Parts: sequence; C-alpha cells; structure tokens
Amino acid sequence: MRDVSIIGLGQTPVGEHWELSLRELGFNALNAAMRDARAERVEALYVGNALSGSLTGQEHLGALIADFAGLRGIEAVKVEAACASGAAAFRIGYAMVAGGLADIVAVVGAEKMSDHKPETVTAAMSLGLDGDYEGMQGLTHLGVGALLMRRYMHEHGYERGDFANFAITAHANARANPNAMYRSAISARHFNEAKPMADPVSLFDSAPAADGAACVILAPSQIARDFTDKPVRVRASAVATDTVAAHDRRDPLYLEGAAMSAQRAYAAAGLGPDDIDLLETHDAFTVMSALSLEACGFAARGKGVRLAMDGEIGLRGRIPITTMGGLKARGNPVGATGLYQLVEVAQQLRGEAGDNQVANARLGMAQNIGGSGGTVVTTILERQ
Amino acid sequence: MRDVSIIGLGQTPVGEHWELSLRELGFNALNAAMRDARAERVEALYVGNALSGSLTGQEHLGALIADFAGLRGIEAVKVEAACASGAAAFRIGYAMVAGGLADIVAVVGAEKMSDHKPETVTAAMSLGLDGDYEGMQGLTHLGVGALLMRRYMHEHGYERGDFANFAITAHANARANPNAMYRSAISARHFNEAKPMADPVSLFDSAPAADGAACVILAPSQIARDFTDKPVRVRASAVATDTVAAHDRRDPLYLEGAAMSAQRAYAAAGLGPDDIDLLETHDAFTVMSALSLEACGFAARGKGVRLAMDGEIGLRGRIPITTMGGLKARGNPVGATGLYQLVEVAQQLRGEAGDNQVANARLGMAQNIGGSGGTVVTTILERQ
Repeated sequence: MRDVSIIGLGQTPVGEHWELSLRELGFNALNAAMRDARAERVEALYVGNALSGSLTGQEHLGALIADFAGLRGIEAVKVEAACASGAAAFRIGYAMVAGGLADIVAVVGAEKMSDHKPETVTAAMSLGLDGDYEGMQGLTHLGVGALLMRRYMHEHGYERGDFANFAITAHANARANPNAMYRSAISARHFNEAKPMADPVSLFDSAPAADGAACVILAPSQIARDFTDKPVRVRASAVATDTVAAHDRRDPLYLEGAAMSAQRAYAAAGLGPDDIDLLETHDAFTVMSALSLEACGFAARGKGVRLAMDGEIGLRGRIPITTMGGLKARGNPVGATGLYQLVEVAQQLRGEAGDNQVANARLGMAQNIGGSGGTVVTTILERQ
Repeated sequence: MRDVSIIGLGQTPVGEHWELSLRELGFNALNAAMRDARAERVEALYVGNALSGSLTGQEHLGALIADFAGLRGIEAVKVEAACASGAAAFRIGYAMVAGGLADIVAVVGAEKMSDHKPETVTAAMSLGLDGDYEGMQGLTHLGVGALLMRRYMHEHGYERGDFANFAITAHANARANPNAMYRSAISARHFNEAKPMADPVSLFDSAPAADGAACVILAPSQIARDFTDKPVRVRASAVATDTVAAHDRRDPLYLEGAAMSAQRAYAAAGLGPDDIDLLETHDAFTVMSALSLEACGFAARGKGVRLAMDGEIGLRGRIPITTMGGLKARGNPVGATGLYQLVEVAQQLRGEAGDNQVANARLGMAQNIGGSGGTVVTTILERQ
C-alpha cells in the first residue's frame, strides 16, 4: 500500500445558508480545497452525506457535485454511515489512493439542515438509529444522548454541571475560528442555567444542526510536495461498527466500536494515545466526548469527565479536544462533520490554527461517531 | 494492485416481501453468499442501497446489516449512487481487495419498496434525478424514460412496437429463473396492448419496483480456490458520471457516462465489445437497453433497437442481454439491482444458469445505470 497525504483543505462557514443549495455548499468546499492543493483536476470524488434524501429531496450527490464542479465524468459516489458519513467517505478516498486505484482524490462532506423545522430535522436524524427498535418507539438522537448521559452520571457519580467544561472549552475555541457557527464564549453559569433539551442534556450539552461543507484532497505522499509545501500524512484511517441500537450493547457506556476503531488506527500507525497531541472528539453531546476519550485510551472508564473538570482538554491541556469549536460551537452539519474534524486537525498540523494553535502539534486524531456509536471512524494525521 | 475474484454468490427471490425487513433481506443474501463461499467471516461489508431513508425509515445500513449478520465490529458502510448504488458498492469492495486493504469482503445490495403506494415510490425514485431542475418541476424517473424513448423513436425512426423484443426476451429468460418476480412469457401482442404508463412507455417497457437483496463475496484471486471451485475473476470495475439532469447533456440520446464507464472497463481489462459473451443491461426502460448497447459499442448510434428486432439479444444471439430476466422481469429492487446483475453474470460464467445458460460464456459484462445516466458502473467478469 502507498503512503497517503492530504494536499488540500477547504471548508465553508458553518451556519444557516438559506441562500446556498447543497450542491453549491459542496462545490464551495471542493473548489477551495482544489485551489489550496493547486490541483486542476481530481480523478475521483467521495461525498459524505447523511440526510440529503430526507432534508433536501436530493440523492445521487456524487454525480451532482462532480458535475457542478466542472468535473463531469469522474468517478463519484456518496458514502453514508449516519453521523460518521464524512470520515467514512474519507476512509474510501484514502483506500483508493493507498491501494493505487487513483492518485488525486477529493473527499467532500456536505449537509444542509437549516431549511427545516426542528421536528423534521429530528426525524431525519433518527434514520441513523435502529428504526425498528429505537425510532419506531419514538426514541430520538437527542433521547439516546440523554439516556447515555443520565446513565453515565448514575454509574460514575457525576452531576450535570461536571460536564460544563466540554461546552466551555468548545465555545472558547470557536471564538477564533472564522468558520464556526457560534463564536461566543460561555461561562459555567451559562451552562448551568441552560434550557433543558432532554434532561439531563441541555442546550449547551447538545450540538446545533447546521449547514456546511468541508473537503480534503488526497494524493500519494510521494508526489504530495508537487502540490503543497505542507502535506499532512495520513497515518491511519479505520472504521469499526457496533450495534446500531444502544440497548443492544453489552454495556451502553462502553463504545466498543469507538474502542475497536481507535485500536485499529493505533495498530496501523504503530502509535498509542500517549503519542497523540490533539483529538477532535464527536461532541454531539458532552457525554460523547467523555465516552470517546475513554474508548481511545485517554482516560479510564468513568474518568473522561474528570479530564474536562481538570482542564486537561484545553489547548494547553494534556489532550486538547474540539480545538476549533467542535460540533458544539463550530456546529454539526451531520454528514460534513467528519470532514470538518479532519480539516481542523490538518490545520493544526500545518500550523494554521491561529489563536487556537496547539503548540508543536505533530500527531492529531479525529473520531467521527455515527448514531450513538454504531459506526466509528478514527483517523490519525501527522505533520510532515 | 491485486487480482480479485468473486468467491460467493447469494440472492433472495425478487418480489413483494411484506414479511421481511430490509435488514433481514440483506442478511439472507449475505448469509447465502457466505455459505456459497464457505467463508465464516468477512472483514468488511459495503451495502448498496438507494431508497431506504425514504422508504423504510432507516439509514446506517452498513452497521445494521453487519450486526444482524453476526459480524458486529467489522468495517461497514453504505454506498449510494441512485439506481447504480449496487455496482457502486461493488466497485468500493473491489477496490478494497485489489488495493490490499482487505482480503475477504462482502458487497450486499438491498432494497425494500413494496410496502408503499406507487406515488411514494415514485417520489423516492425522483431523489436520483436533479431535484432542483427535474424533480422540482414534477418530472419523474418514468417521465425521463418516456422523454428518452419518444426522442429515440423520433430521431431514429422507430415505432413503439419495435422495442417489443427487449421485453419479450427478458420475460422469456425470467421463466427459468427461480428468483425472478415475473416468471411468465409475454408475446408481441401483450407488449403492443400493454397499458401506457407515460406515453410511449408502457407497462412492458418499464421495470417493476420490488424488494430483494443480492450479495457477492470477494477475495484476492490468489486465495480464491481455498473457498470455491468456481471463482469468477473481476477483470474490470469502472465508474463514470455524467450530468444528473438529462437535459444538461450534449445529446440526451448519448449516454456519455455509460460510454466512458465502458471504455474505462475495456481499457482496464484490455478487451473490447467483441470479446464479451453476454451483457446485463440496466433495462429500467426498454430504451435504456438500446442506449446501453450503443454506449458499450455493441451497436451503432440508433441501432440498439435493431439488435433487439433482429433477435440478436436472445440467449443464442450475437450479444445475449437480460439473461435471467433483467430489471423488467426479474424485477428492479433499485439499490440491489447492480448486485443482481453481477450475481447473474457470475452464474452464467460458473455454468449455473440452467435453461438460460449462454453456451461457452467466458466473459460477461454488466452495466448498472443510476438515474437517467448520471452514474454508470461497468463491470467485466471472467470464468476461471
């Protein structure tokens, strides 16, 4: 297999883009990444998207975005794995280059959610749950988040306020990210007084639905410097699955898919958690960051929240997370989120994270979680 | 890149499976293929599906089917490219094995459509069209088929009845296929008197919506005989795209995506149309078979229908097509169709096509078409 590098990055601001269609969002990110890579053409396009069939009345996004970007004819398909669609598409693009099936490949994550009422978005998000055993019973994505958080508090003896630092850190980091949706800091008081969404999940435990698109361009590392002075090497990209229904798991508080995905990534890269300088967690809910930190070996079981309470997740902490705002404050355009995470890790490794730069960042990791953990993709990137 | 072979085949009957859920259909095909391959485990699963979000309230099919099949933990994602989703998923599975990222891979196509009223299915099928420029105007998949057929008749001087042999051949071949939805022969009189759907497309020009799932298991050719006595070699798998909207094409009667996809497959295999012993066309409408035959070089422009009129598409004709009934009579479970085509070509090459066996078939091809030609996947298989 060939060594693979990211040679270009692109992203749109995350927010409510009522004036832009999904294909325009996808094109904007793709175009920005191709310019960044000084690439005039790509051979293939993989589109990560989770909700477009339900929310925009449009599937067939591979061909649609390829054509709109002037790339008519190239190989292009959509990849879906619920909220992990973005990084799942990245995994396919990576495999195409690593396996020698293509040289220059684009991976776009794109999602458009803000044209709809919350209940419509909620119904669409439920497609990533187990329809027969969760969705049919009225359980929502938010509901699963609340059940997991409640159980975590019960099992490990935490209060709701103990989760505050996840949200405070995300919002603090979003301030300097021009592409973030919510660029305002919040305090512990804001967190504690936040409106409940599904108790114990409040407004500030929960990431906002949003529109956005992000893109990376991939190439064999051997030719990466023909395109960019700052290639970012892909050390590992690993997918693992678990039950889609949270209640089917041996232990709902142990994200086995996340653990397996991380282990596969560590094994492929010959690395462990101690080597990682920053981690983009999938903080759809604060509790998901805690579970991800634990599954990836950064904290023992039940100690993920403690990392946040101790301030170890900040930019100068032991393991900085959500360094550009995370899902919470950068925003969560579901199928695009996995690509935003990778673009942000790559920005850190290129030294382009501005006020949010993690000092001497050499190895960065992102974990993109689908549903409540049914599909998990872990990617490890390295500064060159 | 490694040489890749199909080591196992599985399929469910195509029809109205009101008693089976989508995950059960997918599992049944996967289980049959794993037994056929004598494989106890696969490393990865790629699921081709186009409509599940709209029609079954379920996405996240990769993890869902993997878990239901007892394969919890493996890499698994869904691939979507409208009606070409099945073969697009096959292309990903093929790439994973060819590139050395996995050894034993399953590709499942699964779709469930019959629980819904026709108008619901029609709306879901429209997601594969251009939503802004076709769907929004009320154009349907059937409507595009009618426009293409009308234009073909006008440009090339055919009557509606000249298309009859596509349907007659498909229905004749479905008789001996135990998995086909409509196992009854039809005559020219049936065709000519058929109820119009969208003039000039009649009931017998148009493939039926259906439920079904089909699966192939892939492995490096080097170890294929550890699993099966009848490996089928994958000579090429190629994806090409075109505009999603039919009116955006330079010539709506020239499927440029189909031509490019075929050319890429021929080039990869070092073959041409004269080498191919049978072709599974994507006969969602009779005119699509004509356009596919032309795009793949089996007939000159405007002469695809002539091949049918001359009886050259039958089992003993110059280029047998729809040898197990095609979309028309085997049925069209949209996202599964690309896998049915590949299973059927493989059956022919293994000499297991029964009464429908194409004599001495060595090289078989399948062309899976998404939308009206926005994504096209061409696969060439070879008897070992």
